Amino acid sequence: MQNASEAGDKPGSGTGDLSLERAPDIVEAMNAHEPDKAAALLRSLPTEKAIEVLDLPGLANTCEIIAELPSETAVALLSAVSDDRAADIFKELVEPLRTTLLNGLNPETRTVILGLLAYPERSAGSIMTTEFVSVPSTWTIAEVLHHIRMVERTRETVYSIFVVDPVTKTLIHAVPLRRLISGDPHANVLTAAPARKPLMIAPEADRMEAARLISRYDLLAVAVVDGPGHILGIVTVDDVIDAIVQESTEDAQKFGGMEAIDEPYLRISFGEMIRKRAGWLCALFLSEMLTATAMQSYQSELEKAIVLTLFIPLIMSSGGNSGSQATSLLIRSLALHEVRLRDWWRVAARELPTGITLGSILGAIGIVRITLWQTLGLFDYGPHWELVALTVGAALVGIVTFGSLSGSMLPFILKRIGFDPASASAPFVATLVDVTGLVIYFGVAAVILRGTLL
Amino acid sequence: MQNASEAGDKPGSGTGDLSLERAPDIVEAMNAHEPDKAAALLRSLPTEKAIEVLDLPGLANTCEIIAELPSETAVALLSAVSDDRAADIFKELVEPLRTTLLNGLNPETRTVILGLLAYPERSAGSIMTTEFVSVPSTWTIAEVLHHIRMVERTRETVYSIFVVDPVTKTLIHAVPLRRLISGDPHANVLTAAPARKPLMIAPEADRMEAARLISRYDLLAVAVVDGPGHILGIVTVDDVIDAIVQESTEDAQKFGGMEAIDEPYLRISFGEMIRKRAGWLCALFLSEMLTATAMQSYQSELEKAIVLTLFIPLIMSSGGNSGSQATSLLIRSLALHEVRLRDWWRVAARELPTGITLGSILGAIGIVRITLWQTLGLFDYGPHWELVALTVGAALVGIVTFGSLSGSMLPFILKRIGFDPASASAPFVATLVDVTGLVIYFGVAAVILRGTLL
Repeated sequence: MQNASEAGDKPGSGTGDLSLERAPDIVEAMNAHEPDKAAALLRSLPTEKAIEVLDLPGLANTCEIIAELPSETAVALLSAVSDDRAADIFKELVEPLRTTLLNGLNPETRTVILGLLAYPERSAGSIMTTEFVSVPSTWTIAEVLHHIRMVERTRETVYSIFVVDPVTKTLIHAVPLRRLISGDPHANVLTAAPARKPLMIAPEADRMEAARLISRYDLLAVAVVDGPGHILGIVTVDDVIDAIVQESTEDAQKFGGMEAIDEPYLRISFGEMIRKRAGWLCALFLSEMLTATAMQSYQSELEKAIVLTLFIPLIMSSGGNSGSQATSLLIRSLALHEVRLRDWWRVAARELPTGITLGSILGAIGIVRITLWQTLGLFDYGPHWELVALTVGAALVGIVTFGSLSGSMLPFILKRIGFDPASASAPFVATLVDVTGLVIYFGVAAVILRGTLL
Repeated sequence: MQNASEAGDKPGSGTGDLSLERAPDIVEAMNAHEPDKAAALLRSLPTEKAIEVLDLPGLANTCEIIAELPSETAVALLSAVSDDRAADIFKELVEPLRTTLLNGLNPETRTVILGLLAYPERSAGSIMTTEFVSVPSTWTIAEVLHHIRMVERTRETVYSIFVVDPVTKTLIHAVPLRRLISGDPHANVLTAAPARKPLMIAPEADRMEAARLISRYDLLAVAVVDGPGHILGIVTVDDVIDAIVQESTEDAQKFGGMEAIDEPYLRISFGEMIRKRAGWLCALFLSEMLTATAMQSYQSELEKAIVLTLFIPLIMSSGGNSGSQATSLLIRSLALHEVRLRDWWRVAARELPTGITLGSILGAIGIVRITLWQTLGLFDYGPHWELVALTVGAALVGIVTFGSLSGSMLPFILKRIGFDPASASAPFVATLVDVTGLVIYFGVAAVILRGTLL
């Protein structure tokens, strides 16, 4: 047996008959082809399988594939996939195809999809499905179970049943199916309901808020309700996993110092790749130009004590590295709500001694290095080498402390002024620390080397 | 209504009666206290609630809390929580308490827990639960449903029912509960089974393999089976979400250039924080010392053309930034299996033109900057300023290209030699590129400035 036996199979391997494969494996096979070939593959599948395939968000070039299909086939498939997925597809479709296909849908489906399209991107509303089971609170358990049997095939999940007030239609309770099947069939559905009110979320809430609720309370679905408390849809655990993975990927890319890309690496176009990377790279380059300006203003010091230039890369990179550590720690802590905005001073109070300690460790290593090279005769740092070593050591303490402090505070500042803390990338912090690092280094040098080298 | 109405409540707010709260909120309240106070809180809860609370992995200082409890209470609670959670707790307990409590368990539970403890950390086996529903393939749907009603309370999930061969006991099928309840009660359970064999995973497989299966195939649980095909346990979707979030956090911290910490920022001790950060920081510092060595070897060039030093930080950081972009892209792509090890040359073939393009953009900006400052009289780069500008521009093309290429290849190399690609942190790449960046810069300078400045 392989580690993940079935999933280890290559898609399409063996039989060669795609209709026997699982839908995610067909998607992988289709993704390896151009849209026209993929569309032909899709048409060759039995309708039910084709719907399953189109329902998966992992399918690449969905819009191009749809465009290749006869429009009645496209309308039939789009009507059959889950409505949240259909809305996602319509979001990407270009005119005039979009309007043509929308008009082909039956009015009810069209209304639902247009409703979903109206929610802001990344909101709970944008990833919710309207295909859930809801029953009036007057029903018995037997009636609910009968209803579930009738609608099971058209619902994304039947494991959470949402009980609404028969008059006001507001959400009263969420009953897990497992409780229903062990309940007394003749009893009212509410007898199987848990003691607490169901958790709910507004459609405008961030989808990660839904993810947090589902993961914190180990739910299979969370209800999306409007102001008066009517249930509009549900966000299910599988949508939430996709959202978590996508957000982690975007955060990782942003932390690497680029704009997030929404397609796999090998599928993104060259132009798109340059656009996503050049923006930040240029912004960082322009900021980093301040180092050249700073160096220019220290030109006379540099000419007098060229030995100082030898340690510039070493010292600057140490500040950037300690800043990068602190930033990555705090971005994640903020994302996981382990740390709140108001905790900034507690974080600063931790980073200050941490930075001083780490800086002292590096400073000590730096002094030992210079002393060793000098005494072993590997390099001559001049007659005042002890003072040079002291300058490097002291500058390291200052720069690493500044790096840790500013690296940890940057995510707070970005969040406070309404930006994504994840934009505080490692290169961003490094650039921020580099200029200050030079100023600290030459400042320390001015104090320690005054009257000798400077 | 708030965005996430109920979850927005502060834990313990309002009533002040913890037993009325949801378990995750009680955990949050307990986490704010020292272990002795938290243990007192736990004992004040109704037993059923206390079990629910202890069952949550988010509870801090679990072992210290257990140690504060009378041992019969501790044994009772540990027997009642899910066995995968109990195993996690026993993993952390110190002797002699661990043995005392283990001996207090009934022999059956002890065997199960010792079995779970034997699986390697981060394996599918280590996060699986043995509390699942399995039935022989000879049963009817009615028999299965009756069985589920009997055992429902003691099973982590009843939404996937695992059908085993009555003789060999090997896993034959996984039947979703939703299919069962719409099936004919008198028919055999296998009539409700899907056409395909269930997905399975070996207990030694990485837990992220289980996460990938669950997320790819939208499962609620995946079966963990031994070599001959006996089902040992199941990994459920909620355990997988926890694993995904934890791995993303660790990867983010590693990418920031430190060891992953397994506790929230504000809860980790000062000594632990220094240990997790100092190691990588020192390693990077020692490697970065090569820049000092490189600079020393260019000392004569530096003395002749001090103007070159002005751009060292600017040029080196650009290489690091482009490397950091490429590394963050590829770490994620490898983690998500969008890119395989064998795709390395396709990646290199993309990064080479990408790096050249990005480098040319930065190089052009650099040349414009120097030209502007010189012609506007802001700074005098000397009589050969055009050649200096050309040196900076050409060096940027080379360094950004090298940064993109090496940043993208580093995760492949680490993975190939058996390390975690996520260890290719932004500071690691920056350090790698810095030394080479200096060599490229002075190499380009030697060619362009020979006979003039050098």
